[in-house]
Amino acid sequence: MCTLEKRGHVFVLTLTGDGEHRLNPTLIDAIQDALRRVRADPTPGSALVTTAKGKFFSNGFDLNWAKAGGSASQERVHQMSSKFEQIVADLMSLPMPTVAAVTGHASAAGCMLALSHDYVYMRKDRGFLYMSELDIGLPFPDYFMAMLRSKIAAPRARRDVVLRAAKIKAEEAVEMGIIDEAHSSPGETVEAAMRRAEELAGRKWDGEVYASIRKATFSEISGVLGLVKKLDIASRL
Amino acid sequence: MCTLEKRGHVFVLTLTGDGEHRLNPTLIDAIQDALRRVRADPTPGSALVTTAKGKFFSNGFDLNWAKAGGSASQERVHQMSSKFEQIVADLMSLPMPTVAAVTGHASAAGCMLALSHDYVYMRKDRGFLYMSELDIGLPFPDYFMAMLRSKIAAPRARRDVVLRAAKIKAEEAVEMGIIDEAHSSPGETVEAAMRRAEELAGRKWDGEVYASIRKATFSEISGVLGLVKKLDIASRL
Amino acid sequence: MCTLEKRGHVFVLTLTGDGEHRLNPTLIDAIQDALRRVRADPTPGSALVTTAKGKFFSNGFDLNWAKAGGSASQERVHQMSSKFEQIVADLMSLPMPTVAAVTGHASAAGCMLALSHDYVYMRKDRGFLYMSELDIGLPFPDYFMAMLRSKIAAPRARRDVVLRAAKIKAEEAVEMGIIDEAHSSPGETVEAAMRRAEELAGRKWDGEVYASIRKATFSEISGVLGLVKKLDIASRL
Repeated sequence: MCTLEKRGHVFVLTLTGDGEHRLNPTLIDAIQDALRRVRADPTPGSALVTTAKGKFFSNGFDLNWAKAGGSASQERVHQMSSKFEQIVADLMSLPMPTVAAVTGHASAAGCMLALSHDYVYMRKDRGFLYMSELDIGLPFPDYFMAMLRSKIAAPRARRDVVLRAAKIKAEEAVEMGIIDEAHSSPGETVEAAMRRAEELAGRKWDGEVYASIRKATFSEISGVLGLVKKLDIASRL
Repeated sequence: MCTLEKRGHVFVLTLTGDGEHRLNPTLIDAIQDALRRVRADPTPGSALVTTAKGKFFSNGFDLNWAKAGGSASQERVHQMSSKFEQIVADLMSLPMPTVAAVTGHASAAGCMLALSHDYVYMRKDRGFLYMSELDIGLPFPDYFMAMLRSKIAAPRARRDVVLRAAKIKAEEAVEMGIIDEAHSSPGETVEAAMRRAEELAGRKWDGEVYASIRKATFSEISGVLGLVKKLDIASRL
Repeated sequence: MCTLEKRGHVFVLTLTGDGEHRLNPTLIDAIQDALRRVRADPTPGSALVTTAKGKFFSNGFDLNWAKAGGSASQERVHQMSSKFEQIVADLMSLPMPTVAAVTGHASAAGCMLALSHDYVYMRKDRGFLYMSELDIGLPFPDYFMAMLRSKIAAPRARRDVVLRAAKIKAEEAVEMGIIDEAHSSPGETVEAAMRRAEELAGRKWDGEVYASIRKATFSEISGVLGLVKKLDIASRL
């Protein structure tokens, strides 16, 4: 499902296999377990890179798994959505910088997974960001929209993503202010993400302060996720 | 006052005559009636284009009509403002994509009318967007400011519109992220808007889902307008 | 500490001396007193330019003064933060346009001081904007983050400022949409700010309406600062 390794000061979380990395409960549990191990590491000055093997970063929720539930299919969608919300909350509160290396298609919840990171690097030769909900007639969970409002501020860019269901390639996504950098291949994308992560880890910021500032920086999504813990300025003097 | 026709899958709402298209209760009622007919059409896969004849798209509220009310002038302004708020709510909840073809000056409430559409196309040879309130010493109704905050996210662009009362031509408005495209003439503006509307209608999205996503995309103005209905993700599986 | 003079229709508030202009209670009181005199001037059609002598616009709170308080150091930080919050509120409610001429480094609370103005002009040959909190392990007061969310809308720009603690020079700050203009020297920066202020003063806007619109334009910071007074549209007709 996924692997976690540490290279120097950087944790690397990789969705393995050549499949679509559909976010069913099994994969969500595996990611959550990896993030729990990242959080438990006491070393200061760390960072996280999340990436994937194959031509998909992640193609979203596992709707086939949901449909296989028959009369319980709606319940299964709810289950995936609320389990995945916890992953998003884990990433938005992780006490270190986070970088997504998007090496393939990132659709729906897969796009959310990418946007939950502080930095997003993406390959430009193929692959796109795509919020497919409108095309398949699904409204968005509240925390999806809150993330999109928090991370895509330009109204016309946000409209193109959710109200036009545009398939957005890496270079266009940079221009629209949605991601940070477009790279020529999956390998170069991961390398650039690693370099950025190493540089950020090297700043040796206080993880608790970092997470606190991240939550305040993107206050709307943090509020929807229930991440409201605050530190007092004077307590750190 | 205004006409409504359907060309293929696209409704075309036109403010007729060469005047300023001042938004008094009569014109507001006519627009509202047209939008009611648009909404009542059961055909899926539609879109709306709103445009105007003459050198004004709309020059805002009909303040002369208000002043003619003598001691009731303040009440008349309130009446126009709350009637027009309903038009804005109708557009923000319309179950289909909407495109404004701004073929002349769009001032104050006239600018609001344009910004209430999902896409704004504008002629570049003449005409401007202009929030005149500061120049004439009028504060903004709450829903005006909520719309401006929702549709003009860049702080310095929003400041130029409302705190500098800048008259903004089409090409500048594109650069500032306020509108989508600038075209050479009124005819080309309408043609481009029609092409966009046809393309969007052709996506055959579920109108109810479309409206639901629009409201969540621009949550602040939707909240102020009282448009809070939500669909459940699982109910559509 | 600071001087206030009036040149034509423009008030000029200058932080004097070649020091860091650290915002301790003494300097904050002096600035507040100057802003009180600006506000008390009954002339309509005014504007304010705020600038500083030396290589610092302001290097932020006076943490040495806080530390000198020994066991009262935390209380001193709170004291500075809440006194400075009043300055920010004074600027955000000042009944005239405001322009910051940033002629040197603007760090932490010093950067906040600059961003509290409607327009920010900055020298480009040296000096940077720098939110140092993450580097020194301090979370942000709520009103700092509300100001940053209100005045730096682009998520990746805001992240660079607060979650990367980037030192941002003038030309980069213009590109990121954080400030308005970059000029070659302190003298040219002040001259450009004066020209802008004169032009804005010349518009002779109603100061009360101007302040009301500013507060609504940047509603989040205004809400946090408790600036909620509203005017009624009809009362001005």
